[in-house]
Amino acid sequence: MLYSSQHLETLIGCLARLPGIGVKTAQRLGFHLLRVPDENARDLANAILRVRDEVGTCLTCGNVSETQPCYICRDDKRDLSLLCVVEQPGDVVVLERTGAFKGLYHVLRGSLSPLDGAGPEEIGLQALIDRVRKERFQEVVVATNPTPQGEATAHLIRSLLEGHPVQVTRIARGVPMGSDLELFDQATLTRSLEGRKEL
Amino acid sequence: MLYSSQHLETLIGCLARLPGIGVKTAQRLGFHLLRVPDENARDLANAILRVRDEVGTCLTCGNVSETQPCYICRDDKRDLSLLCVVEQPGDVVVLERTGAFKGLYHVLRGSLSPLDGAGPEEIGLQALIDRVRKERFQEVVVATNPTPQGEATAHLIRSLLEGHPVQVTRIARGVPMGSDLELFDQATLTRSLEGRKEL
Repeated sequence: MLYSSQHLETLIGCLARLPGIGVKTAQRLGFHLLRVPDENARDLANAILRVRDEVGTCLTCGNVSETQPCYICRDDKRDLSLLCVVEQPGDVVVLERTGAFKGLYHVLRGSLSPLDGAGPEEIGLQALIDRVRKERFQEVVVATNPTPQGEATAHLIRSLLEGHPVQVTRIARGVPMGSDLELFDQATLTRSLEGRKEL
Repeated sequence: MLYSSQHLETLIGCLARLPGIGVKTAQRLGFHLLRVPDENARDLANAILRVRDEVGTCLTCGNVSETQPCYICRDDKRDLSLLCVVEQPGDVVVLERTGAFKGLYHVLRGSLSPLDGAGPEEIGLQALIDRVRKERFQEVVVATNPTPQGEATAHLIRSLLEGHPVQVTRIARGVPMGSDLELFDQATLTRSLEGRKEL
C-alpha cells in the first residue's frame, strides 16, 4: 500500500480522474489539501457540492446559472439588440473577458456533428430560433468555433433565420494577433484575405 | 461579471488557489465538475472533507494516518530492524512506489533550516531519537533530501545517535539513472565518484 492513509489514497484517486491531472499532480494536490488551513480545503469541497446542488441551466439563454434568468440575462446594462450565439458556457467566459461584447448570449449544447448524433434538435437550435423570433434583436453574432462543425452550425442558423428581419453575422476568422503568417494553414490564410478591411 | 453563475465563479476561485493550477485550468476543471456524473463530483468533495475530518498523524512514525498506528506501522510483513527517515509524508509514497524498502518509516516535519525557524525541536528530531533508543532497529537509513538542509539534518541525526548500537546510513547521492553526466553539477559528480562501487 502506497499511502499510510486510506482516505488520502481515495482523495488522490478522485483528483487523478480530473482532466489533465496525472498521478503525480494528484498526489501533490492531495498532500496540499491535507496541509492547508482547514477553511481553504472545506471551501473547495463545499463549492463543488454547491455547484452540483444549485447550478442548473438558464431557461432563457442556456448558460449555466443558479438563478432564473441568469445574471447576464437580467443585467439591465446589456445591449438588448445584440445576441451572441456560442457552443458552450466556457465560450461566454472568454468573450466576457474581452470586454468587447455588451449584448446578450445564447448558449447551444455544442455544435452540429451528425456522426456523433448531434443534430439541430440535440444542440438546441429550435430554442435559439424561437428566441430570435420572439425578442427584438437587431443582430445575431454567430460565435461558434471555426471548425467544420461550428461552421456548419453557423450556416444552418443563417438559413433558419432567412426571411426574419435580423442581421446574422459571423465572428472574423483570420490570423490570430501576435502570430506569424507562415504558421497558418491555407484555410486560415484564405479567410484572412477574404475578410480584409481597409486600413 | 465573467460567469453567469456565482457558485461556479466561487468554485473556480477555490480551484485556482491550488498549487500549479492557473486560472485557465481552474476554469476547465470548474466546468468539468459541473458536467461530470453527479457521483464523481460528490466523491471528490466528500473525499476532501473526510481527509480533513479524519486524517491526522501517526503517533509512532509521524506519517499521515486516520488510524493509530498507521497502516505501515502495523503491517506485520515489515522488516522491524530497518528504519527509514524522511522529511515529509510524500517521500514515503515515492519510496514505497520503488518496492525496494521493506522496513518502517519515520517522518520528520521537514528539515533543519535555522533561518526559517526550523530547529531540531521544530522538525521533531527528539521523537526520532527516542524511538530509535526504545525500539530495536539495526539500521537507520537517512533519506532526507540531498539539499544543504537535508544534509545538515542527516549529519545531526548521525551525531545524536552516536554511541547508540545502531548503524546509521545515508541514501546514495550521485547521477540519476537515464541521465547524462554533462548535465550535472560538481557536487553531484563529486558524490558520484566518492560513492563509486566495484562493478
